[in-house]
Amino acid sequence: MRNLKIVLAYDGSDFAGWQVQPDSATIQGILASAIGRITGEKVLPQGSGRTDAGVHALAQVATCALESPIPAENLARALNDVLPASIRVLELSEASREFHARKSARAKTYRYRIYRNAVCPPFLARYVWHHPYPLDETAMQQAATLVIGEHDFTSFAAVDPERGKGEDGVSNVRQVSASSWEREEEELIYTVRGSGFLHHMVRNLIGTFILVGKGTLRPQDLTRILEAKDRSAAGATAPATGLYLVSVEY
Amino acid sequence: MRNLKIVLAYDGSDFAGWQVQPDSATIQGILASAIGRITGEKVLPQGSGRTDAGVHALAQVATCALESPIPAENLARALNDVLPASIRVLELSEASREFHARKSARAKTYRYRIYRNAVCPPFLARYVWHHPYPLDETAMQQAATLVIGEHDFTSFAAVDPERGKGEDGVSNVRQVSASSWEREEEELIYTVRGSGFLHHMVRNLIGTFILVGKGTLRPQDLTRILEAKDRSAAGATAPATGLYLVSVEY
Repeated sequence: MRNLKIVLAYDGSDFAGWQVQPDSATIQGILASAIGRITGEKVLPQGSGRTDAGVHALAQVATCALESPIPAENLARALNDVLPASIRVLELSEASREFHARKSARAKTYRYRIYRNAVCPPFLARYVWHHPYPLDETAMQQAATLVIGEHDFTSFAAVDPERGKGEDGVSNVRQVSASSWEREEEELIYTVRGSGFLHHMVRNLIGTFILVGKGTLRPQDLTRILEAKDRSAAGATAPATGLYLVSVEY
Repeated sequence: MRNLKIVLAYDGSDFAGWQVQPDSATIQGILASAIGRITGEKVLPQGSGRTDAGVHALAQVATCALESPIPAENLARALNDVLPASIRVLELSEASREFHARKSARAKTYRYRIYRNAVCPPFLARYVWHHPYPLDETAMQQAATLVIGEHDFTSFAAVDPERGKGEDGVSNVRQVSASSWEREEEELIYTVRGSGFLHHMVRNLIGTFILVGKGTLRPQDLTRILEAKDRSAAGATAPATGLYLVSVEY
């Protein structure tokens, strides 16, 4: 049995997220069908983590056990022929037997794009959060630095009995190694790198940074919100449309 | 009665083209409904020309007669609140009584984007034609220059009893003032500026330039194809997805 590592990009707009669901188009489900159609094998590729409906990926990683001897390069090409144009296989390679897309991941990077001008170009509507209202970007940057380090991120985790305790099902403590805002022309872009992320964590951070940008919260309130370990202490969940899984490190 | 000039950008992917149709979402139809919803007036904005299903616009121009005294700036803002994010009003201003989006147009510019790398990023799939096969780009550029000038473009006009004779319903002679290919990183981009364009003319030019790029035709065949005044002498119609109405000059 081979163990394949698949690197994927996808436009999340048209999908009900990564995880397979009975009556919805999901990336995991469509990828599984495509592999099945090519190899005749019934598989379920395991992703580095779930992405929610509307969330995009520049380089999601999945692993998949396969019997078929079809060379990796040919399988990648065949998959891109079968998959919709909104899901692309960027790389497909043999991995060691121990390699697991989720369990072997050491760090992940996410990005969030906010479009700032009054009128959002129609070509960006699926790919950014349009927020044209005044924001104190310096205060947002100050707030962003305060989540760097090891923290219990319960205040930023979805209250979700099924998934609320994070990917490992135990602790909400995560290590964030980078967290910053940058201006790129009309866009305000947040980049965060960490050991792992709780469900909705990046979008809940964004919703809280926006409150800092509006002056509803002060940057230093981030420390208080982390200590509260209470979802209701933080801001609302920002829309999925601006969020990208950028990379997974192993 | 006021005469309004409306400049619009739209992502054509989700629409059955510009022109209003009974059972399809069209840009003209949706714009008319939005104006009606805001002003209570039944109007039909006239575009500078039709764009087909899937064709995008960076700056389509429309005119619309209106009784409502709502200031132009407020109407623009209200329209962008009501319209889907895939259609944006970029400018809205008072025009002279004589101004007509189509009849007053002196020149139009179109652009066509071809993505050349093996794997097309999912975020570009709606916005380019993915053509990763070998092309002689120098030959394509030579061919492009041969359509500059005043020509009868019948060979590049859709065979379409209803619309085949072009926008003015009379002649297929058009003046092309610029026609060139440029490389921008992974994209090969065609730009054409002319006095007017026949139905499918840009996409039929692209389909013919592609045959030159493949070596099926030589660049100088463009002259012969123009002289043939026969649609079957030219190449196939390229996909709508790569085509943009860039600007209309008055």
